[in-house]
Amino acid sequence: MRFLHTADWHIGKKLHGYDLLQEQEQAIQQIRQIAATEAVDAIVIAGDLYDRTVPATDAVELFNKWIQQLNLTDGWPLLAISGNHDSPIRLETGSAWFSQSEFYLRTKLAEAFQPIEFPDTQVFLLPYFEPIAARLYFEQEYKTIQAAITDVLAEMKQQFDPAKAHVLVTHFFVSGSSRTDSETTLTIGGLDGISLSALADFDYVALGHLHGKDALKAERVRYSGSPLKYSLSERTQQKGVWIVDVGPDHFDCQFREITPPKDIQLVTASFQELLDPAYYELIQRDAFLAIQLTDRAVIPNMMNRLRAVYPYILQVERQTRQTQTTTLAQPVQQLAPPALFQQFFTKATNETLTATQSDWLARGLAAIKEAEQ
Amino acid sequence: MRFLHTADWHIGKKLHGYDLLQEQEQAIQQIRQIAATEAVDAIVIAGDLYDRTVPATDAVELFNKWIQQLNLTDGWPLLAISGNHDSPIRLETGSAWFSQSEFYLRTKLAEAFQPIEFPDTQVFLLPYFEPIAARLYFEQEYKTIQAAITDVLAEMKQQFDPAKAHVLVTHFFVSGSSRTDSETTLTIGGLDGISLSALADFDYVALGHLHGKDALKAERVRYSGSPLKYSLSERTQQKGVWIVDVGPDHFDCQFREITPPKDIQLVTASFQELLDPAYYELIQRDAFLAIQLTDRAVIPNMMNRLRAVYPYILQVERQTRQTQTTTLAQPVQQLAPPALFQQFFTKATNETLTATQSDWLARGLAAIKEAEQ
Repeated sequence: MRFLHTADWHIGKKLHGYDLLQEQEQAIQQIRQIAATEAVDAIVIAGDLYDRTVPATDAVELFNKWIQQLNLTDGWPLLAISGNHDSPIRLETGSAWFSQSEFYLRTKLAEAFQPIEFPDTQVFLLPYFEPIAARLYFEQEYKTIQAAITDVLAEMKQQFDPAKAHVLVTHFFVSGSSRTDSETTLTIGGLDGISLSALADFDYVALGHLHGKDALKAERVRYSGSPLKYSLSERTQQKGVWIVDVGPDHFDCQFREITPPKDIQLVTASFQELLDPAYYELIQRDAFLAIQLTDRAVIPNMMNRLRAVYPYILQVERQTRQTQTTTLAQPVQQLAPPALFQQFFTKATNETLTATQSDWLARGLAAIKEAEQ
Repeated sequence: MRFLHTADWHIGKKLHGYDLLQEQEQAIQQIRQIAATEAVDAIVIAGDLYDRTVPATDAVELFNKWIQQLNLTDGWPLLAISGNHDSPIRLETGSAWFSQSEFYLRTKLAEAFQPIEFPDTQVFLLPYFEPIAARLYFEQEYKTIQAAITDVLAEMKQQFDPAKAHVLVTHFFVSGSSRTDSETTLTIGGLDGISLSALADFDYVALGHLHGKDALKAERVRYSGSPLKYSLSERTQQKGVWIVDVGPDHFDCQFREITPPKDIQLVTASFQELLDPAYYELIQRDAFLAIQLTDRAVIPNMMNRLRAVYPYILQVERQTRQTQTTTLAQPVQQLAPPALFQQFFTKATNETLTATQSDWLARGLAAIKEAEQ
């Protein structure tokens, strides 16, 4: 079979306060177009459909519209699971009816063991779950998610049809993956994700949770990543979906890019440069922008003046120099406070104190001395 | 056709802080039993399925379980609309799939004009809406819901099949109905409900919103009332559902009672009586109880002592005597403050001030006089 693997839609997510619904809709439209162009047999969504357990109504509206479009109107089988951001119970609403039109939405561990059968492939849908769910299902104690997963996969394998390929769709941190800033850590009381080796019996594992497609270096176990950049740390990631061809005797996996409707960029410049048309006309100033200001001086009304030019500022940070790792000339204990501060200031800023700053320092130290007496 | 008419389930509602989910589940089980016994062709739920636009997850779980049971497992056509307590967008989730198994859930005005066709009856599902929705649909201004309803019904009637009976399911206040305390008033900026006469062209109107089955005195336009008592003011209401037989040339409507899993009762007694086994062994003390205390004295640790005997106390009120309407012996202006207070006290309590109370009064009045100087 050939399917499209996506995940982490996070519908309703806001980026530093900016609504992303329009961008999310455009990304889903691109996914739909890719599915059509690639003539896939199914669309797999590996969890975190919503960004919050109680999404806002406009997020629900967007979700309702697009699952209806993709499944009922376009006729694609949808294979979806809940992720750690979804409320399993809320997301479950309607799922008993969805399966009548091949929209398989699984939110409970107990539903993971009956595969969705395609002519040459079995697809197992394992929603995100916490160890307590495994304890209730298997009636035994699990300290780690890895221990629970071992039993889950063992039970799944009893359903394996040896004549078919076996695909697992799930939503966990797989050891060895690299994180970004926008995935909520799944770790609970020291438990972490699951090991790559536990997944070796599947012909393909379609993962959700991490937002970068390259988070894991494994041929048959992949994160699709999110369809949009959801944090500054994802700004250089290429976003898209995997087109997976799998069967008992073949495997192929190709990446298809999603063009970001609005990009995230990091710029480093002085305030003066940023307000200079010669500078800003050369950059994509309606992108979501993180600004690193090279200035050190106080800038009155800075944010408003920047926003007049850059409508989608995510954050403005002063550029801080790298902490120097060279050792100080003299041991700290041997320096008097004024000399110690002067030395620290020079290491941190590559500048020396001005006369005014030296005066502030002297008065500050005197005040401390007085207060201590 | 023969259908069961219920409404105002308010799943997730709490009664003075008490969770009602268990009682709600038992009421739905009774509805299911009545539907089976009466061999109805469909179950009509006239709005307010949930109590809140964002119901708690345990409420969602109960709702999901029972719509699945009634429609998919038992096979009843369900005809339901959103009420003023429901979020139309949230409730809509899944509805496009529901109709594949004759679960018709309508949450938008635009969906009201296409009737659900039964062999001898057309059923129109008109969800609760606000005038703004009519303005968007008809592209004209409406000041009152009555004006909007007039146009809505006129458009509906264009779909009338003269060979069939016509049933309307909706969720509004119909003028002339009597309210209780647990229905949120629909009035917005002075607009009120719809007139009974506007509904005359229907063979039956299945209403939701008011919680008493007798709120309206009309043969063919009825509130089913809520399946449970949802406020103290509903304590004497008989709860249940209507079994409606309707066709082009016949009509019959019978009430089928729901036994309250836990009743609401009002008791009037003294604290001493209430704690006396001879008293409380004769009453249903595990009912939801509103207590009118006849005592006037301060009772230390009152609530805890009462709760030890009565686990589900809704409220405790001191019994206040009816305000006397007899005129005072002398016009108020001619009485000195002590005499005026004495007279008021006697009228209000049928008692005279004790010596201590008279002393408090004198000292209080003196303090006021002093403060005023």
